[in-house]
Amino acid sequence: MTSLITGASGFVAKHLYELLINNNEEVIRTSLEHEKLDDSFVTLDVCNYDNCYEVINNYNVDVIYHLAGIAAPKVCENNFQLAISVNVGGVYNILKASEDSNKKVRVIIISSSECYGKIDSSLMPIKEDTPCVPASNYGVSKLMAEEVALKFMRYSKNPYLECVIARPFNHIGPKQNLGFVVPDFCTQIAKIEKGLIEPTISVGNLEAQRDFTDVRDIVKAYYALSKKGKGIYNLCSGEPHKIKEILDIILNFSSKEIQVKEDHNRMRASDVPLFIGDASKAKNELQWEKKISFKQSLRDAYDYIYESINGLKIDSSAEKEVTITRDKNLIP
Amino acid sequence: MTSLITGASGFVAKHLYELLINNNEEVIRTSLEHEKLDDSFVTLDVCNYDNCYEVINNYNVDVIYHLAGIAAPKVCENNFQLAISVNVGGVYNILKASEDSNKKVRVIIISSSECYGKIDSSLMPIKEDTPCVPASNYGVSKLMAEEVALKFMRYSKNPYLECVIARPFNHIGPKQNLGFVVPDFCTQIAKIEKGLIEPTISVGNLEAQRDFTDVRDIVKAYYALSKKGKGIYNLCSGEPHKIKEILDIILNFSSKEIQVKEDHNRMRASDVPLFIGDASKAKNELQWEKKISFKQSLRDAYDYIYESINGLKIDSSAEKEVTITRDKNLIP
Repeated sequence: MTSLITGASGFVAKHLYELLINNNEEVIRTSLEHEKLDDSFVTLDVCNYDNCYEVINNYNVDVIYHLAGIAAPKVCENNFQLAISVNVGGVYNILKASEDSNKKVRVIIISSSECYGKIDSSLMPIKEDTPCVPASNYGVSKLMAEEVALKFMRYSKNPYLECVIARPFNHIGPKQNLGFVVPDFCTQIAKIEKGLIEPTISVGNLEAQRDFTDVRDIVKAYYALSKKGKGIYNLCSGEPHKIKEILDIILNFSSKEIQVKEDHNRMRASDVPLFIGDASKAKNELQWEKKISFKQSLRDAYDYIYESINGLKIDSSAEKEVTITRDKNLIP
Repeated sequence: MTSLITGASGFVAKHLYELLINNNEEVIRTSLEHEKLDDSFVTLDVCNYDNCYEVINNYNVDVIYHLAGIAAPKVCENNFQLAISVNVGGVYNILKASEDSNKKVRVIIISSSECYGKIDSSLMPIKEDTPCVPASNYGVSKLMAEEVALKFMRYSKNPYLECVIARPFNHIGPKQNLGFVVPDFCTQIAKIEKGLIEPTISVGNLEAQRDFTDVRDIVKAYYALSKKGKGIYNLCSGEPHKIKEILDIILNFSSKEIQVKEDHNRMRASDVPLFIGDASKAKNELQWEKKISFKQSLRDAYDYIYESINGLKIDSSAEKEVTITRDKNLIP
């Protein structure tokens, strides 16, 4: 069995690779030339059909974990053509090349809970058949990619082509990049702990409740989907956690007294107050469920960042996203 | 009131333009540079956001009939990236530029009944809420474009932006290009009538039943949508007609004895036997319904082609699509 991971330089792909290797799978990792982490990576531009066909056939691939895509919300908002070219065109090329290979290939399309959009709280937890009303360009692009995948599932000329769609909700854990709430909080607090910055953290809407799952549990579901499953699967914990709870837990990892400042620029009035999923389909059909506790995920995410931070002050633009200011009252 | 028609060099746009001019509307027609029919056309590449913004604002546009798109099935099958770039990216750019204009703009998005795909006969006639299972890249691209439009309808930052979606079923009438069943039959039969080719016509599946509406009725619905309506509208007659019926009627326009040959290469086993829509939403909300009879549409389509054909033998590649061969028995 040869598995191929596209977009293999990303956060989730690193964990998936580790899992597959630990299960003695043969794994090919691909990424764009400039994103290759080392020489073991194969160059693949998923926007190029010929390139997809070549890689899938040359390596005799049996399973494809299609993780390549543009996830950065800002890029999707500012360059929709690029977003659909990669997120939708990429899925098309991978599936078309798999179809044209005329071999048995199973493709796991990584979609997103962003497909759902602003679902009313009364409809929570969200099931796979909840009508999608995506609110971001990223969410729209992922829903479109699903349409492409569904078309191949319904009408493929290659009877050996199998395709399944995963809709992961928020996932957390070690190695996640800045720009998401957990690494942002962890980075600030780890820096405070190391005395690199002032002991104040600025935060957005702490009341929103979201559904977090450890990335190491998520990739186990992807692996399960390489062996069975049909259609679309929510991958989530089903447990709502307030952003405030994340902050409180991570603050507790620190020995320092840290002040929290509410930043109204970070408050998005349009955010839905509650967003949680129902993963019973994955539980019933894949015998999958999350194993790693919420606290453990945060602990591991924090420890990873704490260990990665060296003593130097960093002034990257990503850092500016989590600029801190002062205020006393928010968290006791 | 200034109306803008994108993709104005096409079959439907010509009829829409005529209707608007007859109603004393101010009309701007746009098309790609190389598709401009004359100097009155404004150049617009809908894949270019800046270009869209400039045209919409410079001409102070109130209504946009967004007809620009790639409709040729072969192009969509062979170049999906191009299809989504134009059919989906174009809708995004037109709506985003309209949103960013911060003015009252009403956009009529021309989608397609191809969004529905292979619907089971038991679910006919198709209503707007019938779940879509598009079977062609063109249909997928149109469904994606609708997703984009729906996102703008749900979440637009410009409260004066209005958007409505039309799902026309097959439309026929004068000026339609070759590659569709009616102009293909008309061209062959008119040529036979003029003695330019042998009196034999080859045909595909004559048993399939489809829903045809005259293009001049369809554009009246678009015009009605420029004034009212919300959401998605089927535009169709609701009357099933066999392809054989079209052939019989057009054969009757000719004084010649014409032989019909079944061509198994033209038989698509995958075709759905029956495909008809329900336009009651358009009837109830827009007070729209078809006025031109099926026979009259075919007569006008035939007469237009008959008058356009000069005495010379034409050998274009489009012609090759309707190559004729011999057989006696199909139609008595």
